[in-house]
Amino acid sequence: MPERERRWNGWGFAGESFPAPARARAWLAERLGEGNPLPAVPESEVVIPPPRPLPALPARTLTESGVRLRTACGHSLPDLLALRTGAIAAFPDAVCFPESSEQVVEILRAASAAGVVVIPRGGGTSVVGGVTVRPGARPVVVLSLERLRGLVRVDTTSQLATFRAGSLGPEVEAALAPHGLRLGHEPQSFELSTVGGWVATRSAGHRSTGVGKIDELVAGLELATASGLWRLPPLPASAAGPELRRLVIGSEGRLGVITEATLRVRPLPESEDGLAVLLPGWAAAVELCRELLQTGVPVEMLRLSDPPETSFGTTLVHLSPLAARVSRALFGMRRYHRGCVLLLGWAGATQEVTLAEQAAAKLWRAAGGLALGRSGWRRWRDERFRHPYLRDELLSAGWGVDTLETAAPWARLGAVYSAVRQAMSSACERLGFRVAVLCHLSHAYRDGASLYFTFLWPLARGAELAQWSALKGAATEALLETGGTISHHHGVGTIHAPYLEREVGQTGIAALSALARELDPQGVLNPGVLLPGEAT
Amino acid sequence: MPERERRWNGWGFAGESFPAPARARAWLAERLGEGNPLPAVPESEVVIPPPRPLPALPARTLTESGVRLRTACGHSLPDLLALRTGAIAAFPDAVCFPESSEQVVEILRAASAAGVVVIPRGGGTSVVGGVTVRPGARPVVVLSLERLRGLVRVDTTSQLATFRAGSLGPEVEAALAPHGLRLGHEPQSFELSTVGGWVATRSAGHRSTGVGKIDELVAGLELATASGLWRLPPLPASAAGPELRRLVIGSEGRLGVITEATLRVRPLPESEDGLAVLLPGWAAAVELCRELLQTGVPVEMLRLSDPPETSFGTTLVHLSPLAARVSRALFGMRRYHRGCVLLLGWAGATQEVTLAEQAAAKLWRAAGGLALGRSGWRRWRDERFRHPYLRDELLSAGWGVDTLETAAPWARLGAVYSAVRQAMSSACERLGFRVAVLCHLSHAYRDGASLYFTFLWPLARGAELAQWSALKGAATEALLETGGTISHHHGVGTIHAPYLEREVGQTGIAALSALARELDPQGVLNPGVLLPGEAT
Repeated sequence: MPERERRWNGWGFAGESFPAPARARAWLAERLGEGNPLPAVPESEVVIPPPRPLPALPARTLTESGVRLRTACGHSLPDLLALRTGAIAAFPDAVCFPESSEQVVEILRAASAAGVVVIPRGGGTSVVGGVTVRPGARPVVVLSLERLRGLVRVDTTSQLATFRAGSLGPEVEAALAPHGLRLGHEPQSFELSTVGGWVATRSAGHRSTGVGKIDELVAGLELATASGLWRLPPLPASAAGPELRRLVIGSEGRLGVITEATLRVRPLPESEDGLAVLLPGWAAAVELCRELLQTGVPVEMLRLSDPPETSFGTTLVHLSPLAARVSRALFGMRRYHRGCVLLLGWAGATQEVTLAEQAAAKLWRAAGGLALGRSGWRRWRDERFRHPYLRDELLSAGWGVDTLETAAPWARLGAVYSAVRQAMSSACERLGFRVAVLCHLSHAYRDGASLYFTFLWPLARGAELAQWSALKGAATEALLETGGTISHHHGVGTIHAPYLEREVGQTGIAALSALARELDPQGVLNPGVLLPGEAT
Repeated sequence: MPERERRWNGWGFAGESFPAPARARAWLAERLGEGNPLPAVPESEVVIPPPRPLPALPARTLTESGVRLRTACGHSLPDLLALRTGAIAAFPDAVCFPESSEQVVEILRAASAAGVVVIPRGGGTSVVGGVTVRPGARPVVVLSLERLRGLVRVDTTSQLATFRAGSLGPEVEAALAPHGLRLGHEPQSFELSTVGGWVATRSAGHRSTGVGKIDELVAGLELATASGLWRLPPLPASAAGPELRRLVIGSEGRLGVITEATLRVRPLPESEDGLAVLLPGWAAAVELCRELLQTGVPVEMLRLSDPPETSFGTTLVHLSPLAARVSRALFGMRRYHRGCVLLLGWAGATQEVTLAEQAAAKLWRAAGGLALGRSGWRRWRDERFRHPYLRDELLSAGWGVDTLETAAPWARLGAVYSAVRQAMSSACERLGFRVAVLCHLSHAYRDGASLYFTFLWPLARGAELAQWSALKGAATEALLETGGTISHHHGVGTIHAPYLEREVGQTGIAALSALARELDPQGVLNPGVLLPGEAT
């Protein structure tokens, strides 16, 4: 069980928050106007229908309303709107808590036999509807991985560690540290999300530019299906047919339940550091990132904010009066008027970190960069898991906020960036409201990078979901038209499912459907997620 | 069409060879005894039955005996035995030469409709039966990619280049060089094999430790099936469901015909160099390789020969009398009596190459290494594509020779190494002959490495195939028992197909079979390859 109580209708742990500073509210009000504050109904006002009857499941199973409410949704914007208004479309009829991989198989067998829908749930942090309960004729059980946790074994020679799927980020690192090892996979949901969830959704973390996405970190897997446990032992590489581990990675609970993963780990770094650099403009700063990656300068963490995100970002940090004056002066300069903050981080042997920093400095200096020092980077590192709490505060204050992310080859990145911004502007202009679109580039590769957009708008009472749909739909269309993927690390879920065919083609959908029919013949595993148009 | 004529019954280009030096023959005779020279029947003695009738195919189609003979086999040892003895089990009924991706689709449609088996063929260098024509009731057409060649487009910004599937290794590099780029994928078959073949078999090259296997180099793909062209455009990364490109990579012509691939390329290096180092013993030398990879010392090319391979290797190179004296003296020293030669190569910016060499030197010196200089490495680099010609010479001289390769986590590598050697020794002891097993470690990763075994034995007349089967079978069993993959970069073909289920499980076979049924409902695409027990 999680040690800390989670907020039932918002991000993260009860008691934690990231209040929006007055300057941030002023920034938004100036650009977007005031929105309609969206109050949250109290838990007692949520109407939860009684659970439908279920067959006996071979694991601890709860049907209490509080548990069913807490496992009905993830953290997409539609989820949050539903939780805040109490208009939750569907609840699971039960939540079960298997304690072994074998129990997961037995649950899947029982559910398949009885035609019960199973929604696997790790940390429940999906922002794309991957764990949201959908209304449907069949009863629904949420299969929580909460009791399937911990380090199974560690192979320090091969730097491989096997974890049960329900292990949370901090547990992973805590279990590895005594062995002098770390994983280094740190999505923003790190404190709340699980190994199984990362693998199921192809997640990325802040350090992925250096350590690789979870796709690259998985060496071996165990997947539970109704037919049994499918074990794919760790291998550094193989040519024994198509890489079937890659079929499981990104399968979002639609092909089976990931019960264990063997991950590639690495030594704890001797030192870690980073810095913030101010660059004169977006296009040249993107070019700098490309140069860093293509010349092979080692970077573990890279994040480049565009001018709007840089501008909004300065409203979120508390600066001393002196620092605030310096900051105003800098952005007042013509050169940095459209400035972009680049964060660069390193970890490793002290000498390597120093050499890499020097190599990077040569490039960012040549690009007209100005060092803002280490404190900006450190503050970001120390606060990065708190940023998502801001969304709940902004919703309360009347502004909608959501994010979407993509990746594309470098040559297309400019077109993707412009098209997404343009599409959202046009969409909200048609509907008569304004939007602020912030963006950062992160997770860079030799051949391209991901762009992460945050969009904010003033909520219109009763039309919140329609506003979000218009923005999200327009942006996704823009991605597909310009060659960006519909998701770089959030996954498909239900929200992106209708668009998947345009990305992977009819043949891709046919291939995935064939796999789903083979591994889940009764169609009980997370229907509606990944593949569009499935009966729930 | 290939510019140079190929040998019809052996490796490579007509006129090329790698004659076995007298010292190499003496080495073998001393350890194995003399074998029975296996003469090759002349082409005129091969009996080729008339082709069976075929529907008209929408591309140039040849039915001449010479063409059918030249596309009946690959380069596995059973293939070579068949070609040498003239006892070829089956011939294609025709060979067709599509000139566009669309023509490939049309051929697949016509073949599917008529129940004609299609065997896609790139360079034809498969050593695992991946392109060998199998006897069966249905007519067989070989689909040659020979006319689907060349660079389609290059994106120098993203360092991506799209090639037609039939492009040969030297063509790829020649097309990239004017753009200041290279791929750096150099399997030993480089001069003879194709982009499509590399992707279909998950191949690796000499530089893969640095540049990655082909798996990592593919950013986008086009696959022809009877339903049309499946295009998966290049992306640096994605979370849009499971990575379907990885389903195509390694599909060995069983799911479709790869017609184009977009590959991650890199700048031509400013400099390139390497060296040979003599290390005192195998186990410690393997540890050194692990250390190199796990401490992140950049290495583009790494190859560590075990004591038997090191010993045999010295018989293959022409040394000056002085060098020969030095070599004898060295191996005479107690310290290097069981010496292992390690080749290390680098390419990149001159300063980076120098730094990497220095970092590596610190480690190999600490491991008791002795620099043998750059000439050994350069000779190996310059001759590496000629080594496979030796096999034909040895067969003629009476020794069987084949190779097999695997990969495993570092912690299992020692067990895999011993088990394979032991299994082959036991197998041939039972059958009353001797075997020499040579091995090198290459393609190293943070979590493991590949081992490449070469085994040689004295041929027994009429029992050549049985000898090979016993050795190969015993070794493959040993791999499966110790956790090595059945192939690191040769693929599955027909030869490994019966073992695939033990590696990927019943569920893995079921998943692949479901995909094959979906993408090739008539079961005409390379049946018998990859999936075992299919009707040919």
